[in-house]
Amino acid sequence: MRQMSLKKKPVTGMKDITPREMEIRDYVIGLIKETYGKFGFSSIETPCVEHIENLSSKQGGENEKLIFKILKRGEKLKLETAQCEADLVDGGLRYDLTVPLSRYYSNNANELPAPFKALQMGNVWRADRPQRGRYRQFMQCDIDILGEPSILAEIELILATSTLVGKLDFENFTIRINDRRILKAMAAYSGFAPESYDTVFIILDKMDKIGLEGVAQELKKEGFAEEAVQTYLGLFEKVTGDLAGVRFLRQTLAGVLEESVAADLETIIESVEAVKNAKFNIVFDPTLVRGMSYYTGPIFEISIDGFGGSVGGGGRYDEMIGRFTGNPTPACGFSIGFERIVMLLLEKDFQIPGKAEKTAFLIEKGMPEDKLLDVFREAEKRRAEGVCVSMNMMKKNKKFQKEQLASEGYTEIVEFFK
Amino acid sequence: MRQMSLKKKPVTGMKDITPREMEIRDYVIGLIKETYGKFGFSSIETPCVEHIENLSSKQGGENEKLIFKILKRGEKLKLETAQCEADLVDGGLRYDLTVPLSRYYSNNANELPAPFKALQMGNVWRADRPQRGRYRQFMQCDIDILGEPSILAEIELILATSTLVGKLDFENFTIRINDRRILKAMAAYSGFAPESYDTVFIILDKMDKIGLEGVAQELKKEGFAEEAVQTYLGLFEKVTGDLAGVRFLRQTLAGVLEESVAADLETIIESVEAVKNAKFNIVFDPTLVRGMSYYTGPIFEISIDGFGGSVGGGGRYDEMIGRFTGNPTPACGFSIGFERIVMLLLEKDFQIPGKAEKTAFLIEKGMPEDKLLDVFREAEKRRAEGVCVSMNMMKKNKKFQKEQLASEGYTEIVEFFK
Repeated sequence: MRQMSLKKKPVTGMKDITPREMEIRDYVIGLIKETYGKFGFSSIETPCVEHIENLSSKQGGENEKLIFKILKRGEKLKLETAQCEADLVDGGLRYDLTVPLSRYYSNNANELPAPFKALQMGNVWRADRPQRGRYRQFMQCDIDILGEPSILAEIELILATSTLVGKLDFENFTIRINDRRILKAMAAYSGFAPESYDTVFIILDKMDKIGLEGVAQELKKEGFAEEAVQTYLGLFEKVTGDLAGVRFLRQTLAGVLEESVAADLETIIESVEAVKNAKFNIVFDPTLVRGMSYYTGPIFEISIDGFGGSVGGGGRYDEMIGRFTGNPTPACGFSIGFERIVMLLLEKDFQIPGKAEKTAFLIEKGMPEDKLLDVFREAEKRRAEGVCVSMNMMKKNKKFQKEQLASEGYTEIVEFFK
Repeated sequence: MRQMSLKKKPVTGMKDITPREMEIRDYVIGLIKETYGKFGFSSIETPCVEHIENLSSKQGGENEKLIFKILKRGEKLKLETAQCEADLVDGGLRYDLTVPLSRYYSNNANELPAPFKALQMGNVWRADRPQRGRYRQFMQCDIDILGEPSILAEIELILATSTLVGKLDFENFTIRINDRRILKAMAAYSGFAPESYDTVFIILDKMDKIGLEGVAQELKKEGFAEEAVQTYLGLFEKVTGDLAGVRFLRQTLAGVLEESVAADLETIIESVEAVKNAKFNIVFDPTLVRGMSYYTGPIFEISIDGFGGSVGGGGRYDEMIGRFTGNPTPACGFSIGFERIVMLLLEKDFQIPGKAEKTAFLIEKGMPEDKLLDVFREAEKRRAEGVCVSMNMMKKNKKFQKEQLASEGYTEIVEFFK
């Protein structure tokens, strides 16, 4: 057969995963399955390939521009008459787990419990510009509660996620919470017109980078009325990041904000505070926006103190599934930044607790069969006791071989001579 | 926003996985990781998308016709000037884990231990004709030892795989073993020409379906010499499915079969017999062919008694990786039929041992906050004790709700009134 020429690197923007990283990934996956399982979430999976129509339904926002599309096959592919890309493809790799969840829910609604608590862990693909630490294939980890209109959903999602993050090896973390309806009421109270909310929120979202003054300047630059900007800033100057802040808005925004919205937010914060079993703070953050416009109620984000950026977020999106499936369904979800958590654990050289002892057996070449059987029996005995035993032929350069095994984590090396 | 029209079914030939099936999949995955880990196999992962050139290198045989191909993106896609399919695509979904393993090994060889013991679990995609129980996306589970020329590799692979299958809930299973060099020596001894071996083996492979007589007839129909066919059949009539059979061939084929081949096969069988810790038989099967022509030495297959077909197989393929990467590398692997095992466990309504107790809390609507907090605290307490607790709002039709929860495996239901 002819010599093949092989491309050795993975495809652009995707990566091979080493044994060391896999250990951490498997550990985190195990922790996620166990923790979320205790909260009654059931694992489901959908195919990585999704109908191109479902992926192009406008639910995915910018992600729809980043789809890896799959060529039609056989007779369906008509290259001669194809006018555009859409004529060539019938599927694509999913860019998130929410679109497939909507499809799954509508396909299986009759057999699913109500509410349905789903845990999804799976790869998604986005043909983003490659950059450090961001890959075109990455794992997402979502929990969603479909069919529960009350804040029981929010509380359970936040408790489950904080229990999970609390089991990881981080000092302290923070959950920030807000409500899309509070965001809107603050804008309405200040006198912004509803059609300008999206623009206002995009600017507000920069608060942590450019500060209150920066937000004010950008709002003015957009041409919003001086008075509206001043009232808006006045609210943010007075509101605090705690229950008192929520209560302040509840009173101040009376008339533009339904009272139950603020009351529910208080209950969520108080419940999480009362029950939490890990070291973290839950704070009210009236500047929290979350990008996706499909959120309809409480929104939240989780960040690990000392590391910039969020490691997860979510919120209530009561209208999305109904718009997608035709049956209105309240929904709320929390997504954890699996890849980011794995990266942080790798960077701090995290050691997995309770790992099995690792022993390497070195067998001299030419060992007679009866003696070899004894070595296999010994390995079997130790494996049954829970030890990891790797069988190896002894090499000429035994010193190098031992060093290599040590670097793989083999703490004991036993030699067997013929 | 306009009403979306959603395709509810998964794409053709792929499936949504239910919570019940996921439980079994997760259980089997956990068992695989644990068992193979004890034998010193390290998990690795490669991207699901592979260079189209690597997938089209002729290593994949018929599978190369079944690739899901991925459209080029952005400026690279030149629809106007595209002459053929190949101009449109730059990647494809992997159809097996062996091609990616070869690429991974050549990309990371300097950092990998020698020998390298790899465990891969991952989805592969083949655009096969859809049929019952076979899907276009399915999980493969391979263990491979790269860089070990001795039968230590074969023995470890068979012991690891039989230990795994032994932990599953099946009565008895059988491992059949042969060697590609014995297959060839039997054909050579009988007088078949080397260029006809492939044809002979394809017919021999039908032995379990059409019997010795059927094989004889088909060989004659192909036009092979009466004498060769008679000698060939004579060998199969005399050879037995045990060590005596191996020894018989060792003597009979002296001159056309290197003695070490039969001796090694004996050692493999004896070692596995001596150490095995599960209820299974390892038998010599001189009719075992295994389809792929890349095998160079021992080949094996595992089947569960009472269920037709194999649930795994493998063998030595010393020439493949070198042909692919340029560096000759001895290699041996065993692949387990993950989907088939899951299907068998589902069909026999397998109950996962040691599953957490499941309790559902039902909360009456309108419960005051202080009382609600007590319920959350009680749930937290039980979860910390290892119980799965699902929090639910009490429904009007409580009887139906309880039935539904029972069918989800909630054995205890606790009601909390306001």
